[in-house]
Amino acid sequence: MTNQQRIVIIGGGFGGLHAATSLRNVDANITLIDRRNFHLFQPLLYQVATGALSPANIAAPLRDILKKQKNTEVLLAEVQDFDLANQEVILADGRIPYDTLILAAGVRHHYFGNDQWESSAPGLKTIEDATEIRRRVLLAFETAERETDPDEIRKWLTFVVIGGGPTGVELAGALGEIANHTLKHNFRHIDPASAKVILLEGTDRILPPYPIDLSARAAESLTKLGVTVRTNAIVTDIQPDRVTIRTGDQTEIIDAHTVLWGAGVQGSPLGRRLATAAGAELDRAGRIIVQPDLTLPNHPEIFVIGDLANDTHQTGKPLPGVAQVAMQQGRYVARVIQARQEGQTLPPFHYRDLGNMATIGRAAAVADLGRLHFSGWIGWMMWLFIHLLYIVQYQSRLLVFIQWGWSYITRNRAARLITGNHILPMVKEKDAERV
Amino acid sequence: MTNQQRIVIIGGGFGGLHAATSLRNVDANITLIDRRNFHLFQPLLYQVATGALSPANIAAPLRDILKKQKNTEVLLAEVQDFDLANQEVILADGRIPYDTLILAAGVRHHYFGNDQWESSAPGLKTIEDATEIRRRVLLAFETAERETDPDEIRKWLTFVVIGGGPTGVELAGALGEIANHTLKHNFRHIDPASAKVILLEGTDRILPPYPIDLSARAAESLTKLGVTVRTNAIVTDIQPDRVTIRTGDQTEIIDAHTVLWGAGVQGSPLGRRLATAAGAELDRAGRIIVQPDLTLPNHPEIFVIGDLANDTHQTGKPLPGVAQVAMQQGRYVARVIQARQEGQTLPPFHYRDLGNMATIGRAAAVADLGRLHFSGWIGWMMWLFIHLLYIVQYQSRLLVFIQWGWSYITRNRAARLITGNHILPMVKEKDAERV
Repeated sequence: MTNQQRIVIIGGGFGGLHAATSLRNVDANITLIDRRNFHLFQPLLYQVATGALSPANIAAPLRDILKKQKNTEVLLAEVQDFDLANQEVILADGRIPYDTLILAAGVRHHYFGNDQWESSAPGLKTIEDATEIRRRVLLAFETAERETDPDEIRKWLTFVVIGGGPTGVELAGALGEIANHTLKHNFRHIDPASAKVILLEGTDRILPPYPIDLSARAAESLTKLGVTVRTNAIVTDIQPDRVTIRTGDQTEIIDAHTVLWGAGVQGSPLGRRLATAAGAELDRAGRIIVQPDLTLPNHPEIFVIGDLANDTHQTGKPLPGVAQVAMQQGRYVARVIQARQEGQTLPPFHYRDLGNMATIGRAAAVADLGRLHFSGWIGWMMWLFIHLLYIVQYQSRLLVFIQWGWSYITRNRAARLITGNHILPMVKEKDAERV
Repeated sequence: MTNQQRIVIIGGGFGGLHAATSLRNVDANITLIDRRNFHLFQPLLYQVATGALSPANIAAPLRDILKKQKNTEVLLAEVQDFDLANQEVILADGRIPYDTLILAAGVRHHYFGNDQWESSAPGLKTIEDATEIRRRVLLAFETAERETDPDEIRKWLTFVVIGGGPTGVELAGALGEIANHTLKHNFRHIDPASAKVILLEGTDRILPPYPIDLSARAAESLTKLGVTVRTNAIVTDIQPDRVTIRTGDQTEIIDAHTVLWGAGVQGSPLGRRLATAAGAELDRAGRIIVQPDLTLPNHPEIFVIGDLANDTHQTGKPLPGVAQVAMQQGRYVARVIQARQEGQTLPPFHYRDLGNMATIGRAAAVADLGRLHFSGWIGWMMWLFIHLLYIVQYQSRLLVFIQWGWSYITRNRAARLITGNHILPMVKEKDAERV
C-alpha cells in the first residue's frame, strides 16, 4: 500500500475507458473494473446482430488497450455493492478500497414494467444479445423454409422492431436489407423478399431527438428498403407469436414470431445501490442525478458518468445517452481529479454537441450537425468516415473498412452463423413434411 | 414429385460439400442436410480457439455457397436414423426419401472409454468448442492474476494439451505464443511468460504420421515457443486440476487447471445407425468400413465418405482423416453417380496424396510433400499460401490474409473475447483479496 491516491473506475465502456486513459499521466493508482474482458463499440452492435461484422471486429480487450499505462490495472470482476463509510467497492469475491470512485456502469434495456416481454423481444446491449438476435433472425427464415402452414410462414417472415430510436432504425434497415438482398436465392420454398419488417414508434416520428427533416428522410430511406414504418403505435402486449399495439383508439394485433426491442433503457442496478448508499436521487429510468461537476451531493469523491448519469444542468433536460457524452464526461472527470491534486477547481461539465448520426441500411444515413443536416449517400459516407476514425482499437481500421467494403459490394453478410443452443428450425412436427 | 433421381447428402463438411458442388450439372434433385447452417474450415479452428480469427472468418453459410446451384437445396435439420427398406432418412421432424444416399457425418472427439474426461478436457471440433477453449484459456490467465496462493497460480498457468497430432501441435504452439508474446504487459501481478505449456503424446514422437525429420523439426519449433514436448506419455486420468500420466513404469501427476484434448476421434453416432441398418461393419473408432467404390456391401445406393469412412483398399491402412481425402471422395462419388446415369462404371476410389502440413505458432510449419520436406519459415509460407487458396468462400481471401498479416506484425490476437456463460475469474473467496 502506498500513499498514492486510489482511483477505482467501474465500467469499461466509453465513459469509464476514457476516464482511465485520460488519467494516464496522473500520479495515482487506478483500477478499472469490468465484468467483461473487452470494451465494446456499441454503436455497431446492430451490425453483429445482422451478420455483417463479427463480435471481435467491434470489441477490444481492455487489458490490451491499457497495457502500456503503468498506473492502471484492469480487474475482471463483478461489483455487488458499495461501502461508502470505509470507501470500499464490494465484489462477489473481495473488496477494493478507493479514494476516488467513478461509476460508469451504463444501462440495460427496460421494458417499462413488463419484464415478461424480454424473452419474446430481446434487446441489444451485449455481444450475447447480438448473437442471440442474429440466431433468431436467421432461424426465422430457416423455419419458414420448412413450414407448410401459410399462416405460420407469414408469422416467421414478419419481423417487428419496437422503438424508432437509432438502434431500432438501424436494426430495421439491416433487416430490410437481409430480406431483400442478402438472402436472395438462398431458399427454395420461400422468397425472403416477401418478409415484412415493421418498425413501431410510440411518438409521431422516428428518431425523435433529430430535426424533423432528418426524421422524414430516415423514414423514406427505410421505406425504400421495404420497411413499414408505423408511428403513434404504442405496444401494449408482446407474446411469442404476436405484438399488440394501440394506435389512437384502435387496438391491433401484429402476428410475428420475431420481435426485437429497441425502445427503452434503464440504469444498471449498481446505480440504485450507489444512490441508496449515498443518499442520492434516481430518475424514473434508474439514472443517478448528478451535480454540475458529475459528483454526488455530499460525496465529492464519487463521480457518476455516461449513460448512468442524469445531468440536467446544461439544458434542463438530461444529456442524451450517447458515446460522445460519456467520453467527454470521462475526460472531464480526469481533469477534475488532476485539478484537485493541484489545489484547483474546474467549472461545471459542459457537453459540446458534435452532432448525431444514424445509418439506415447499406448506403443511407442521417447526420445532424447542428445547422447542417445530411442524409442519403453523403450522410452514409460521413457516418462511415467518423466511425472508422473512432474504431482504432478494434482490430485494424483497415480490416473493418475492407470487411464493410466487401459486404457493401457483394451485399453479403458473411457472419450469419447460427451458434449457441437451439440451432435448428422450430418447425412443428405436423408441418415438417415439406422438403 | 418428379422422376428425377433424389440424392440426399448428410453433412456439409469437406466431403459432403464437395459431393454437392461436384453434382451441380447432374440431372438430379439434391438435398444437403446439416444441423449447422454453415460449412466450417476445420483446419483453422485452432486459430479461433486461440483468439487469432473470428468464427465467421472460417465459416461460410451453406445456403450462400450453394445459392446458384439450382438442382440443390439445403436443409437445416438433425438426422436421427435411416429407413433403408423405404429409402428414407428419418429427421427429428420428418422424413426425406432418397434414391442415393451419401453419408458424410464426420467424427467427434473420443476419450477412449473415459467420457467423464470431456468436461475437464474439451476437444476442438465445432465453433462452440473453439469459443469454449478460448474462454477457458483467457480465464485461466485472469484467475491467476486474481489468485494469491502460489500453488493455485501455478496450476492456472499450466496448460496441458493431450495428443501430438496436428491439432495438438497447432494448439500448443498457439498457446506458447499467447503466453510469451500476445499477453505481454497485459497483467500486473503475473507474468504470462511464466506459463507452462505441456504437449503430451503417447507414442515416441509428435506428428506420428509425418516423416521422422519433420517430427523432429516440429518439436524444435515448439520448444522455441516455450512448449514442453513429452513423448511416450500415456494419460491415465484427468481431473479438473490435474492430469495423471504414465511414462514407462513411472506414474506422474501434472497439476493444471486447463487441459485440452486433441487425442482421439470417433465416428458420428449416425455411422453406427447406418451400419446397423445396412449390416455394414464398423471399425474400433466407429467408422464404417466401405467398399473400394465407397458404397456399403449390398447397398450400391449408399456411399460413406470423409472422416466417417474407413477405406483400407489403397494402402492396407485406413486413409487419414484429412480434408483432402474427404474432398476427393466427394468428387469421386459425384463422378460415380454421373457415370451410373450414363450406364458406366468407374474404377475404385484412389486417393492422390498431395502432402500434409501442420503449423506451429507464428512463423513455422512443417510440410510433407512426399519426397520434399519443408519446415520453419518456408514451410509456414507454403502453409499460408495453400490455406489462402482454399479459404475462398470464407469471407474474402483478402480479409483473412490482412487479419493474419496484422496479427503476424503485431503479434496481437484481437479476437480474444471471453463470451458465453461463466465469464468471470474462478478465484476462491479466501484468495481474492489481492488487488
